[in-house]
Amino acid sequence: MFGLLGNLLTLKEDSLSLHRILKGKIEISSRISADNIFETEGERGKGTLSSIYTPGVAYVSEEIRDHKDLVYEYTSKWNNIAIVCDGTRVLGLGNVGPESALPVMEGKSVLFKTLANVNAFPLCISITDKEDIIRFVRSIEPSFGAINIEDIESPKVLEIVEALQNELTIPVFHDDRHGTAVITLAALINSLRLLNKKTKNVRIVIAGAGSAGYGIFRILLRMGFKSIIVVDKQGAIYEGREPDIEGSDSHNQRNRDNLSPSNNQINPFKKEIALNSNKQKIKGDIVTAIEGADVFIGTSGKGGLLNSKMIKSMNKDPIIFALSNPDPEILPAQAINAGAAIVATGRSDFPNQINNAVVFPAIFRALLDLRIRNLSEDILIAVSKSIADLVDIKHLSKTYIVPKINDPRILPVVTKSVKEYIIKRHDK
Amino acid sequence: MFGLLGNLLTLKEDSLSLHRILKGKIEISSRISADNIFETEGERGKGTLSSIYTPGVAYVSEEIRDHKDLVYEYTSKWNNIAIVCDGTRVLGLGNVGPESALPVMEGKSVLFKTLANVNAFPLCISITDKEDIIRFVRSIEPSFGAINIEDIESPKVLEIVEALQNELTIPVFHDDRHGTAVITLAALINSLRLLNKKTKNVRIVIAGAGSAGYGIFRILLRMGFKSIIVVDKQGAIYEGREPDIEGSDSHNQRNRDNLSPSNNQINPFKKEIALNSNKQKIKGDIVTAIEGADVFIGTSGKGGLLNSKMIKSMNKDPIIFALSNPDPEILPAQAINAGAAIVATGRSDFPNQINNAVVFPAIFRALLDLRIRNLSEDILIAVSKSIADLVDIKHLSKTYIVPKINDPRILPVVTKSVKEYIIKRHDK
Repeated sequence: MFGLLGNLLTLKEDSLSLHRILKGKIEISSRISADNIFETEGERGKGTLSSIYTPGVAYVSEEIRDHKDLVYEYTSKWNNIAIVCDGTRVLGLGNVGPESALPVMEGKSVLFKTLANVNAFPLCISITDKEDIIRFVRSIEPSFGAINIEDIESPKVLEIVEALQNELTIPVFHDDRHGTAVITLAALINSLRLLNKKTKNVRIVIAGAGSAGYGIFRILLRMGFKSIIVVDKQGAIYEGREPDIEGSDSHNQRNRDNLSPSNNQINPFKKEIALNSNKQKIKGDIVTAIEGADVFIGTSGKGGLLNSKMIKSMNKDPIIFALSNPDPEILPAQAINAGAAIVATGRSDFPNQINNAVVFPAIFRALLDLRIRNLSEDILIAVSKSIADLVDIKHLSKTYIVPKINDPRILPVVTKSVKEYIIKRHDK
Repeated sequence: MFGLLGNLLTLKEDSLSLHRILKGKIEISSRISADNIFETEGERGKGTLSSIYTPGVAYVSEEIRDHKDLVYEYTSKWNNIAIVCDGTRVLGLGNVGPESALPVMEGKSVLFKTLANVNAFPLCISITDKEDIIRFVRSIEPSFGAINIEDIESPKVLEIVEALQNELTIPVFHDDRHGTAVITLAALINSLRLLNKKTKNVRIVIAGAGSAGYGIFRILLRMGFKSIIVVDKQGAIYEGREPDIEGSDSHNQRNRDNLSPSNNQINPFKKEIALNSNKQKIKGDIVTAIEGADVFIGTSGKGGLLNSKMIKSMNKDPIIFALSNPDPEILPAQAINAGAAIVATGRSDFPNQINNAVVFPAIFRALLDLRIRNLSEDILIAVSKSIADLVDIKHLSKTYIVPKINDPRILPVVTKSVKEYIIKRHDK
């Protein structure tokens, strides 16, 4: 225990001092050297200033005015994405505000660039109303090749993404939902493979019905898993359960837009979950729901939600994905002690990191390069399988169920699987 | 003539091919090397991933949540600015749309970085309504240390900037207005010095009453020039002139918000001009207004507005600043042939470039480093004088009235003059 506390203290100090030294993890760079811009010698007697800026750049503007699609050829739009966040649901910290979200989004941007050469600019915004955010994202469409929606509270964010995917001509990806779903499914495929469990009949409990929980539920359902129970703050979701009114929890303390529709209506996403899961209508909290389950997937945002007793009540060789960040539902050592066969978290400092960072950079690379719009659940499943396959059966083990974030095979394999899926569908 | 046409053709080809090769003049870079992030060897056995991303970054978020101002210490906010443009008034091209504005704003971003190490991200937006743009800029405040408003049509933009300067806690600079005013005044100071003209009594004609024209008018008035006439599309502005209704010209063809207040009201900025200039109430167009003038400053957006005859009708040793881009009001050779003593344009391919690029990167460096809010006309005048003084009297000549864009002395001198002004005011 002292060791862990010591590690955490070190991590805190390391993180703060690194950020203090860097004063920003990203920057904007010019792709033309200063020498080149202001060159005074040479054949033409001048640098590229008159080409990249006025007057020469006016010719480029005119070309784009006449053929709008040329903006993909003459500017960085093809490779620019915005990370849009209103700070209402940052990591597992809740509603900490847009300024507090900024270091997280800069971290994402670093991964986007390092892993997939995507230019991702963080736009942490001070508006939290659903319609305002939709309007905001719509207005920045000309400057970006794709949009990543990040760490906005649910269910508002699910409605925002749905609206934007219908309206915009560029892809809108919701990392908390789509990214988490893809990597979680990959991890589950490999865990079941390792434990030799029949894939479709395992009983799965998902804790949390926010963006991640809903996304995982959707992809597992589409994948064919038959026995899923989703548990939210009020307990297991089932058909006929008294609808809960959103917007009363502490996450919304900073939300000045309490009149937005998503806060005073029945959550349609939970309704969808109720209709498509928990056929036995199991009621009660996580303690009841987890009894006899094969798989626990935690997206609850509640560190310490699970205890040893609950794991012991599960089926033989239970699989525990405690994905909440920064505090997982249970620490790996404790879960293993209680009999878990495979444990994974969302953290980079434990084995088996189920982190959307494994997939989001590569997925955006594919979206941008292939210039496709949005990814259906079926394409997401194809990507999951390709990611799972990267873990060779020879190397598959209880501490290696998903590729490392920096596995260089991820980038080409994701683009390949998306491309193949599109071609296959097109051929039909 | 053939030579010039040949040059322009070459410039067009050069610009287009350079942009086609680059596919974007800027990019986002990580300030941490990939090796460092994913290091598996070394003392701690892991790289900085867990510090820059989850879980470590959560500590940074929490610190900012508790002390909001730490966002300036832990993120790149201190050095990030947004270049906000709606594409309604791009260069002298008019309303070409946000996509067409993008290559211009990327060019600005290159200059910001190269000349002043400022991270300037272009946000070319699809909204053109005044209130929508104000709301938009307000919403991005958390992510940026300052805002640069660029190439938005006037008078709407003047109202937008005024509203934002009152509302936001970060500085809002309007380059077309403030930047142009600073460099034009610097050029005028040195031109008059060179020609030995009494500064306050010269007669000045400004063509164009948009952002640049209004900004130049304001700074010249504050500087103490007594005889200014501003000419717009309807001719010389004077007190008592029939007010013009904005919004009927071709620039607004794409503007779907014709009901916005600025389009159906009397332009208050022109009213201010009328009350403070043209005391003799000279009426008529530019031909009449320019007769007997000492200085012509063109911000009309109309290439070829001046001819030789008009220059010949001016006072002895006329000063011609033909600043419209990409096509100046008159080409330098023609103006000189007609008797102009000093000619300057906004273009980098002619001598005497009066371009706000000389000042805007350095002004933002000062705004960000000193963390001051907005610049009064008096600070802008102090900056102008410091820029003018960079041209040593020994080197001052008809083809060298302002420093070159890449003069390395600009950056320190601008910060110094802003700082001194603030300290002086504080001491009073």
